[in-house]
Amino acid sequence: MFVLGVDPGLSRCGYGLVGATGGANVPGALEAVAAGVIETDPAAPLPERLRILRDELRTLMAEHRPDVVAVERVFFQVNARTAMSVGQASGLALAEAAAAGCEVAQYTANEVKQALAGWGAADKGQVRRMVAAVLGVASVPGPSDVADALALAVCHHFGAPVRRAVAEARR
Amino acid sequence: MFVLGVDPGLSRCGYGLVGATGGANVPGALEAVAAGVIETDPAAPLPERLRILRDELRTLMAEHRPDVVAVERVFFQVNARTAMSVGQASGLALAEAAAAGCEVAQYTANEVKQALAGWGAADKGQVRRMVAAVLGVASVPGPSDVADALALAVCHHFGAPVRRAVAEARR
Repeated sequence: MFVLGVDPGLSRCGYGLVGATGGANVPGALEAVAAGVIETDPAAPLPERLRILRDELRTLMAEHRPDVVAVERVFFQVNARTAMSVGQASGLALAEAAAAGCEVAQYTANEVKQALAGWGAADKGQVRRMVAAVLGVASVPGPSDVADALALAVCHHFGAPVRRAVAEARR
Repeated sequence: MFVLGVDPGLSRCGYGLVGATGGANVPGALEAVAAGVIETDPAAPLPERLRILRDELRTLMAEHRPDVVAVERVFFQVNARTAMSVGQASGLALAEAAAAGCEVAQYTANEVKQALAGWGAADKGQVRRMVAAVLGVASVPGPSDVADALALAVCHHFGAPVRRAVAEARR
């Protein structure tokens, strides 16, 4: 299973594709296949920035064909100034993922921290170190958007055995 | 000039296409060419609803080829529960408009009221009656989303002479 994590943002939208090489939920069996940041120019008009982000996300999904796209679920009490652009970016990510035929999952930042570090109030450094450890790399390169996107993908992988067990129990 | 007004929303996204038959900014010279509401099923998964909205907006723009798309500019102090979905819907409208090669304008609800009724605190009924009068129809049919979308398009038409004058003064 390949999961594309997306940390939505207009100026910086992080992404990270994580594959399960072994197939099972074992630390070390997960591997980062691709990761990076889609950036748009804050000086450009908003519709053009959103179009670029849309096209980049579409290209990413067409190129890597993830099974699942995991998008951060954002709330609006955070920062009214950035809230709108995060909402707009997340809308594009969700719509493009559905259009690409991917399964789509959403996790809050706290759910990701809970899954990776065992508690919801873990700091960014701790999550970054957990992501590196799980993916078997010395460190996660790049800005926090990349680490957050990889963490979303890892979070979805971690939940896979539970989802399978629930699905089987329902049968 | 043809302007497509879009009142973004996830459950109900209003649209209204208004053309200037005479070309000048004269009441009565504006005409509603198309208007309606794109609805998505609240029981469907969010990514699928956004994909449907995206596809419907794209079809609308491809079919009518507006010169300008006028999208309501929304803020987040309104209602935290609907804020996210309005942001997501507006992101899709802006990105699709840019991708379709349209000029894109954004107006707040107050700017629209100011332009149509002369003051920013006009009530919905007053705006609806103004839209009907400007478009030369007895009444604007349908839910308020349709009237709001038509009002956005009319608002952009009303500003056209001022924008032309400013552009000429700059030359």
